[in-house]
Amino acid sequence: MSYGEGRTYKKVEIIGVATESIEAAIQQAVSKASSSLQKLSWFEVQEVRGHIGDDGRVSEYQVVIKASFELK
Amino acid sequence: MSYGEGRTYKKVEIIGVATESIEAAIQQAVSKASSSLQKLSWFEVQEVRGHIGDDGRVSEYQVVIKASFELK
Amino acid sequence: MSYGEGRTYKKVEIIGVATESIEAAIQQAVSKASSSLQKLSWFEVQEVRGHIGDDGRVSEYQVVIKASFELK
Amino acid sequence: MSYGEGRTYKKVEIIGVATESIEAAIQQAVSKASSSLQKLSWFEVQEVRGHIGDDGRVSEYQVVIKASFELK
Amino acid sequence: MSYGEGRTYKKVEIIGVATESIEAAIQQAVSKASSSLQKLSWFEVQEVRGHIGDDGRVSEYQVVIKASFELK
Amino acid sequence: MSYGEGRTYKKVEIIGVATESIEAAIQQAVSKASSSLQKLSWFEVQEVRGHIGDDGRVSEYQVVIKASFELK
Amino acid sequence: MSYGEGRTYKKVEIIGVATESIEAAIQQAVSKASSSLQKLSWFEVQEVRGHIGDDGRVSEYQVVIKASFELK
Amino acid sequence: MSYGEGRTYKKVEIIGVATESIEAAIQQAVSKASSSLQKLSWFEVQEVRGHIGDDGRVSEYQVVIKASFELK
Amino acid sequence: MSYGEGRTYKKVEIIGVATESIEAAIQQAVSKASSSLQKLSWFEVQEVRGHIGDDGRVSEYQVVIKASFELK
Amino acid sequence: MSYGEGRTYKKVEIIGVATESIEAAIQQAVSKASSSLQKLSWFEVQEVRGHIGDDGRVSEYQVVIKASFELK
Amino acid sequence: MSYGEGRTYKKVEIIGVATESIEAAIQQAVSKASSSLQKLSWFEVQEVRGHIGDDGRVSEYQVVIKASFELK
Amino acid sequence: MSYGEGRTYKKVEIIGVATESIEAAIQQAVSKASSSLQKLSWFEVQEVRGHIGDDGRVSEYQVVIKASFELK
Repeated sequence: MSYGEGRTYKKVEIIGVATESIEAAIQQAVSKASSSLQKLSWFEVQEVRGHIGDDGRVSEYQVVIKASFELK
Repeated sequence: MSYGEGRTYKKVEIIGVATESIEAAIQQAVSKASSSLQKLSWFEVQEVRGHIGDDGRVSEYQVVIKASFELK
Repeated sequence: MSYGEGRTYKKVEIIGVATESIEAAIQQAVSKASSSLQKLSWFEVQEVRGHIGDDGRVSEYQVVIKASFELK
Repeated sequence: MSYGEGRTYKKVEIIGVATESIEAAIQQAVSKASSSLQKLSWFEVQEVRGHIGDDGRVSEYQVVIKASFELK
Repeated sequence: MSYGEGRTYKKVEIIGVATESIEAAIQQAVSKASSSLQKLSWFEVQEVRGHIGDDGRVSEYQVVIKASFELK
Repeated sequence: MSYGEGRTYKKVEIIGVATESIEAAIQQAVSKASSSLQKLSWFEVQEVRGHIGDDGRVSEYQVVIKASFELK
Repeated sequence: MSYGEGRTYKKVEIIGVATESIEAAIQQAVSKASSSLQKLSWFEVQEVRGHIGDDGRVSEYQVVIKASFELK
Repeated sequence: MSYGEGRTYKKVEIIGVATESIEAAIQQAVSKASSSLQKLSWFEVQEVRGHIGDDGRVSEYQVVIKASFELK
Repeated sequence: MSYGEGRTYKKVEIIGVATESIEAAIQQAVSKASSSLQKLSWFEVQEVRGHIGDDGRVSEYQVVIKASFELK
Repeated sequence: MSYGEGRTYKKVEIIGVATESIEAAIQQAVSKASSSLQKLSWFEVQEVRGHIGDDGRVSEYQVVIKASFELK
Repeated sequence: MSYGEGRTYKKVEIIGVATESIEAAIQQAVSKASSSLQKLSWFEVQEVRGHIGDDGRVSEYQVVIKASFELK
Repeated sequence: MSYGEGRTYKKVEIIGVATESIEAAIQQAVSKASSSLQKLSWFEVQEVRGHIGDDGRVSEYQVVIKASFELK
């Protein structure tokens, strides 16, 4: 967030899903939201979840983030 | 949520209002959001509130949900 | 919120930034969101933050609100 | 809540107990509080609990609500 | 909970899934846990979620409860 | 709170509504509760909400406080 | 809480202050509220605080509880 | 918790009930769970509640704890 | 979670400890619980903690998760 | 917060007390902490409380903030 | 907290450990912090935890408090 | 935390910033705090946030931790 006067931002809640890591799931959410919504400025992680495969291994990470962008 | 790789979902917050029951208020929110926004996959209840009429009876339920859909 | 049957509302999360006061930051968020999104009905404050200048004074208030409007 | 200037409301916390449903427990709380306290305007559900009978069935719902009324 | 001295209870977290209503999902959780675990005494609702079908209707309620039973 | 031994206080939850500012809404709640209930000692803000008029301006602040007084 | 049908309870928030222990502060709140308000059934601790004297010792415990009684 | 590599612990939620004090209720939960479940390593208090007798005195403390033990 | 009717799940709370990363600690918890308890379906991260060695480096991650499996 | 690599910040919790307004209490906390501790960068409001005088008017605002500064 | 104008307090988070009781652990934290930091005014309990010995008895209480003192 | 009698710990809140991963940001906070403050014993993650660059990629992770050390 740059500093100035009279600005407005919007927060949206996005879930990114990726197999490798929590960071990959965050990047998945950020990339998709940046291209389909708006240029995002920052994010906050809300929740980290995941799916477990039949082999007893984490098969994917599901990370819920709030991402923010300026309303111009 | 089906399981796979590299997917992204968006969560929106909706309030449904109905007179009959909490379930009717949830369905009201889901129906309206499905038709005007996107095909929704799942919901989570955030808050249950309501209005009380002059006769001391619950006159409507107001249920706040978060509903999620895939960003394709 | 007026009272009736079968209505639906959407909540959006907005951050208003202003130099004068918390109330000015709320109004900044409400004004911008009203003009670029929808006619808003009510708001709830989520978080009050701010930036501190080199002179040790609060240089701006950043107020996160949830604002709601009817989905018609 | 009607809109105007300089009004004051009081919130009280009430638990309604009923055998049929969550909605019946809310109505139980609202009816009793309306008759013994004040004309209530709205409620917010705080907690949903219940008792389980020897037959393994829910024997009653206990719903904690906050109910509000105007201080005139 | 009956009242006495020196008793101990255990809380377990169970998710019941049912198509009809929130109450049916609670009963599903309670019935299954009563038969496979222990005679339960009371429950507390933690979370209400659900799945939304392709037709934009709630297709099932998923209710997370904590259920308690005495350790004898 | 003065310090001593064996005292008891009661907390009540009040909503003050005012058009000018958050502080005015707090004072509205405190004044009304002081005159109709008891001499209050301190307050804690629970929630700040508000109504938005048709002109896209905050038309009133609704501030929920808990106020405490000694039970003598 | 005895179990039956169609009952209603009220929760009040009370702060007990005592010098000896947390339990003494809870009893202080319960005794005072029982005599001046109603026959109470159960309590839940909300917050434990205290004052520290000039000698660096805890000089009193302030315990906030919610206490419940049946509305008959 | 001793420190090492690749260990796993399980947390269980237990309610201890005792008449004397909060500490006695914690010990009640810990003793019972240690003998019927596993050797416990540490606990965290979740909630402190209690019952109030007809004489307006606390008749028992009910303390909810999470207790942890190593899965070997 | 597959979708159907009348299913029941149980959530257990597990702490995984690993030296390499948060993901390794999650996998540690999931692997151990899968082999000693049940085939798990999904997890939710509750808490991320860790130990710090004498050299001022993180020596292990301790991740608390809730893991769920179907009660059949 | 300026953006770069490998930076560290410390958060401290400060209570500012002022008679005029919530903003004055925040500024009181920020000014005192800036002069006696460090050059602060931003703050987050944690809690707003206050004292009520014998005349039933708010006599001071007590605002708890977390303030952050870079550890260089 | 005495009442006046333009005061500032700092809150610090301290963990006291003692074998006898929760109150002893609070006093341990308060005594140590008073002597090594500042003259403290009040405290708030954040968390109560403890260690369990091999004999299945609570071997120590660990109480996390926030303690406050005036910044003069 | 080693186990013994009558010990005291202090918790401080630190934000580590790093470009590579969440673990790198935690280590950044821990290293800096260890060298400039005290020998730390353990940490708890409070919040995970980050900045997003103009290319729509996460450009840094900002992790808020609480870190603890013994007051001797």
